[in-house]
Amino acid sequence: MDLILHNDKFIREEELVISKEDRGYQFGDGIYEVIRVYEGNLFTAKEHIDRFYDSAEKIKIVIPYTKDVFHKMMYDLVEQNEINNGQVYVQVTRGASIRQHHFPADTPPVLIGYTKTVERPVELMEAGVRATFIEDIRWLRCDIKSLNLLGNILAKQEAHDKGFYEAILHRGEVVTEGSSTNMYGVKDGVIYTHPTDNLILPGITRSVILTLCEKLEIPVQETAFTKTQALEMDEFFLSSTTAEVMPIIEIDGQAIGGGTPGPLTKKIQEAFKANLNLGVKA
Amino acid sequence: MDLILHNDKFIREEELVISKEDRGYQFGDGIYEVIRVYEGNLFTAKEHIDRFYDSAEKIKIVIPYTKDVFHKMMYDLVEQNEINNGQVYVQVTRGASIRQHHFPADTPPVLIGYTKTVERPVELMEAGVRATFIEDIRWLRCDIKSLNLLGNILAKQEAHDKGFYEAILHRGEVVTEGSSTNMYGVKDGVIYTHPTDNLILPGITRSVILTLCEKLEIPVQETAFTKTQALEMDEFFLSSTTAEVMPIIEIDGQAIGGGTPGPLTKKIQEAFKANLNLGVKA
Repeated sequence: MDLILHNDKFIREEELVISKEDRGYQFGDGIYEVIRVYEGNLFTAKEHIDRFYDSAEKIKIVIPYTKDVFHKMMYDLVEQNEINNGQVYVQVTRGASIRQHHFPADTPPVLIGYTKTVERPVELMEAGVRATFIEDIRWLRCDIKSLNLLGNILAKQEAHDKGFYEAILHRGEVVTEGSSTNMYGVKDGVIYTHPTDNLILPGITRSVILTLCEKLEIPVQETAFTKTQALEMDEFFLSSTTAEVMPIIEIDGQAIGGGTPGPLTKKIQEAFKANLNLGVKA
Repeated sequence: MDLILHNDKFIREEELVISKEDRGYQFGDGIYEVIRVYEGNLFTAKEHIDRFYDSAEKIKIVIPYTKDVFHKMMYDLVEQNEINNGQVYVQVTRGASIRQHHFPADTPPVLIGYTKTVERPVELMEAGVRATFIEDIRWLRCDIKSLNLLGNILAKQEAHDKGFYEAILHRGEVVTEGSSTNMYGVKDGVIYTHPTDNLILPGITRSVILTLCEKLEIPVQETAFTKTQALEMDEFFLSSTTAEVMPIIEIDGQAIGGGTPGPLTKKIQEAFKANLNLGVKA
């Protein structure tokens, strides 16, 4: 039976008590991370942990562990649950207190972490996916990986209802990111993606991709593009911790790059996979 | 010991089990209401219940009770807990399911309701409060009374940190509402307040006030006004279920209407109080 991390203790699910007045439950007052595990190793753990602490700091939640202790907790969770290929989900909320909008005094945050087994979406990454434009109606601090995800889930659901894998969000004409992914277009050998500001999440996979592109000498422009420009791209792809580098071969029924994954997208996919050191004993 | 409503059962707090994967806890995927109880009576219960069902419908949560049954549940909760002056807090989430952004299939919603005793803020309503302008960074569906309240609580906290009772939110120059209240300015005998669109919550107290103004023949313009116009108002006040009609006598250190509650504000306060039928046996 898998164990759950509850603050700094490992417990069984049936031992977990969540208060009705946990501010995560009443206000979405918390932040989270999803960290990928490949062959028993936490991938880009440092980057995820840094972002976890950054998100917490942005909403003034103080995580009561050093990053090193927290890293060890993530490591122990994966080991305890014998996760080979999977992920850790971890969130921290401002804790449980009589409901009021302003922050409660002297209330310890509540941390919950757990694991699950997940396989790489190999077939989808080979075939590519279809996406649809949906208006981005979220708040203006999308750089915070918060538990306020209604805008994201409503967009994802609308995309699913229409038969698409993902929503390509846009504010007015400008493409920002996906409902749970970052978005990239390729035109004349250059990769375009929205700059990391308050309108998008600074994706860890995004940052891995940008580093890989530098090594591969593929030029990247962190410049926003429009819906019209998106449809005229030679290639299109998205990225996330679980979707990795995923080709988008069609947007709202219009084929991108002939309707098959493009050469630069494939090159980045290969470089990303190589970077995982799969099959190499750590 | 107070009872808690859990779906359609009354239970003790220690019996309540909330899943770590309740979508309310991981996505803020739910909606809520606060209903005021005066002398044992639910105030404007029908209006709150209508809005509860409206909010649920807007995010496609289906509440598995008729409004009449739900009304009875609210009534029973207040009676069980012997609440004389207080409130009911009630929320419904999309339920517990393996974490994924899109809606889970066949997952029953989770409803939680509970009560607390609250007194009317009589002294504050007589003295008036101070407020501060804070940029409105929330999403574009503020008409939904959802559990995604980070934008609201960060604004409330910023106001509190600066020593103010409430934040007056503005998008660019335009005043929208408060962090948990609606906002009104009075100029030359006319009351101005933001129209009910996607940028504000359609307050129940707001709607009571508008009806009272009609009876009192006080002209109301549901027209947005700017920060500059706000500072030039003769009177200013806010409203909410718990704050009722609350004079704002100062904005960011600048006195409004001489720094005391204005005559029209007081007139509406009196009419609001009379409308509660306090001391009259129902």
